[in-house]
Amino acid sequence: MKDEQFYMQHALELARLTIGQTRPNPSVGAVIIKDGVVVGTGTHLVPGQPHAEVYALEQAGEKAKGATMFVTLEPCSHYGQTPPCAKAIIDAGIEKVYVATLDPNPKVAGNGVKWLRDEGVEVEVGLLEQEAQQINQKFFHFMIYKKPFVTLKTAVSMDGKTSANSGDSKWITSEEARHDVHTQRHQHDAILVGSQTVLRDDPHLTTRLPHGGLNPTRIVLDTQLAIPLDTHVLTDQQANTIVVCGKQADEDQEAQFNALNYVSVWRMDTDQIDLKALLSRLADAKLMSVYVEGGATIHSEFIQHQLFDEIHLYMAPKLIGGELSKVFYNQLGFDYVADAVNVTFHSVDMIGPDIKVVAKPQHEEDA
Amino acid sequence: MKDEQFYMQHALELARLTIGQTRPNPSVGAVIIKDGVVVGTGTHLVPGQPHAEVYALEQAGEKAKGATMFVTLEPCSHYGQTPPCAKAIIDAGIEKVYVATLDPNPKVAGNGVKWLRDEGVEVEVGLLEQEAQQINQKFFHFMIYKKPFVTLKTAVSMDGKTSANSGDSKWITSEEARHDVHTQRHQHDAILVGSQTVLRDDPHLTTRLPHGGLNPTRIVLDTQLAIPLDTHVLTDQQANTIVVCGKQADEDQEAQFNALNYVSVWRMDTDQIDLKALLSRLADAKLMSVYVEGGATIHSEFIQHQLFDEIHLYMAPKLIGGELSKVFYNQLGFDYVADAVNVTFHSVDMIGPDIKVVAKPQHEEDA
Repeated sequence: MKDEQFYMQHALELARLTIGQTRPNPSVGAVIIKDGVVVGTGTHLVPGQPHAEVYALEQAGEKAKGATMFVTLEPCSHYGQTPPCAKAIIDAGIEKVYVATLDPNPKVAGNGVKWLRDEGVEVEVGLLEQEAQQINQKFFHFMIYKKPFVTLKTAVSMDGKTSANSGDSKWITSEEARHDVHTQRHQHDAILVGSQTVLRDDPHLTTRLPHGGLNPTRIVLDTQLAIPLDTHVLTDQQANTIVVCGKQADEDQEAQFNALNYVSVWRMDTDQIDLKALLSRLADAKLMSVYVEGGATIHSEFIQHQLFDEIHLYMAPKLIGGELSKVFYNQLGFDYVADAVNVTFHSVDMIGPDIKVVAKPQHEEDA
Repeated sequence: MKDEQFYMQHALELARLTIGQTRPNPSVGAVIIKDGVVVGTGTHLVPGQPHAEVYALEQAGEKAKGATMFVTLEPCSHYGQTPPCAKAIIDAGIEKVYVATLDPNPKVAGNGVKWLRDEGVEVEVGLLEQEAQQINQKFFHFMIYKKPFVTLKTAVSMDGKTSANSGDSKWITSEEARHDVHTQRHQHDAILVGSQTVLRDDPHLTTRLPHGGLNPTRIVLDTQLAIPLDTHVLTDQQANTIVVCGKQADEDQEAQFNALNYVSVWRMDTDQIDLKALLSRLADAKLMSVYVEGGATIHSEFIQHQLFDEIHLYMAPKLIGGELSKVFYNQLGFDYVADAVNVTFHSVDMIGPDIKVVAKPQHEEDA
């Protein structure tokens, strides 16, 4: 039975296909039907290029007259890099539009739907709304709270260890889990680590998927600007790198860092890096989402101050044990269980031989 | 469509209903049909009372002649506390028997099926065999390996902690998870803890379910016989308690313990308690399954020596952190990830707000 849900599901699939690649724009899909036949489909591909509705309308051509459109996000009403989709829909003669969810962007926020209705286009809003919002959850979060969506990622053994006694951590989780991690990098605007991770592992922090992927902006918290100049995140020029330091950091070192291509230093107003202030500065830079890959010092700070929107825990079927082995949240902590930070388990899945648990802060899930 | 699987599934449900309560016997269900109508059902209830087949035959009465029986375990062929079921089936005139799995008990082990066939009863073995073996997995394990089935149970926060900084651990997991734990106690012959757990929590280690349940035999590892005489496991007389000590333990203390009702002391041949030797002694005492509730010292020993058949990890949606908080496997451990004890995740389920992960040793799963 091909009903409205059927077509909207297809539009949602088109949107899902491009999660990550449309950053900072949301991922959107559109399907146009007429007399029970699909006459056009589209998905937004790259910022600056046409929106989903426009591709679908181009395909439909003359058949758009009197047709019905299913679109996963409210058509835009403002002149940005492309002309407003609401106008294109009206001009094409579309009769009815199913919109999964309104656009939280204050430039749109109901204006697209209003414009359509004012011009006599019938509009229904809310079909598969939750699925549509989930696809662009980072975009929605940023538009609503004006703060980056923060994902804490950790990989542990079944007994909660992020490294063995020697400090060795290669590889706790499977190739399948690491593939998922790189998909997450592709879907975040920024990736954040501490200087200890850079000093110990000298990582690239790039997206390495079988068919490539977009690199997030790299953010290194390095209070004293202590990471060496020849470290990969400073030299490989595969992505932008922001090195964040405290107000006392060495100025010569700062100048040397800033002289490098794709590298910039952010000097904070405080001796220690204040995460809340940093997140606010990231928001100003339009970085809508941050993937925090730890280690423990960084994760502990984010958790203790409840500055996270999701935790992604990859658990491997291994038992590491040991008194020198590490865990991902080891600082501060709580004296009593009743005082612990509460989260809600949002999903649990097997990824290859591993388990992936996604948790959200309890207050957000309850809201 | 009511086919053979339909009736055997029902017989399996009858067996599942009694998991735990038939200890040390296996749980068995039986269904008899004739001309497409169920004429008898039965499940073994209590050791010493009739087997599943006998109840079903009693219900069927004269209708058993020429009928078909579905039974989840091979009918017994020996005179135990009850006469052999194979004989009862033959005497009743059953024409055909579907047996889900052979009985691994060396006293039966194919003899039941042979007897039936010798007397002209048609027998098919293997219908839903895996499900049938899973229901009695502890019984099968004991019969095959002559060792108790060892389940390690732990309850942790999302960051792997079994207690907060102060040592407080009440309650990390939810009521729903604790209900599952009590169901597990009901299904194990013995429950094992270390003296530190007794000294710290003074637990009863009994089965407390809304409708009651069987208590496992309590085993306390107490090398020096250091637990006080007025502790619950020694005084409450709700279940047998075995206190296991090293060969140097105080003899007066041993005499005081042994003077208590339901309490006995097992003195080992070594200064420290050797778990392998203990498991062998538990097997001699026909304790087929042991539920190990830790703490960390005990769990670490079982893991390090790979003396476990399942690990049940209950994970709560809490973040406890802290440098003084505890984890369930903290001793010895490994210098490199590659040397870790490998397991396989057998199942992952939500239990209320918590997650339950069941892992098995990799060698057993591969076998």
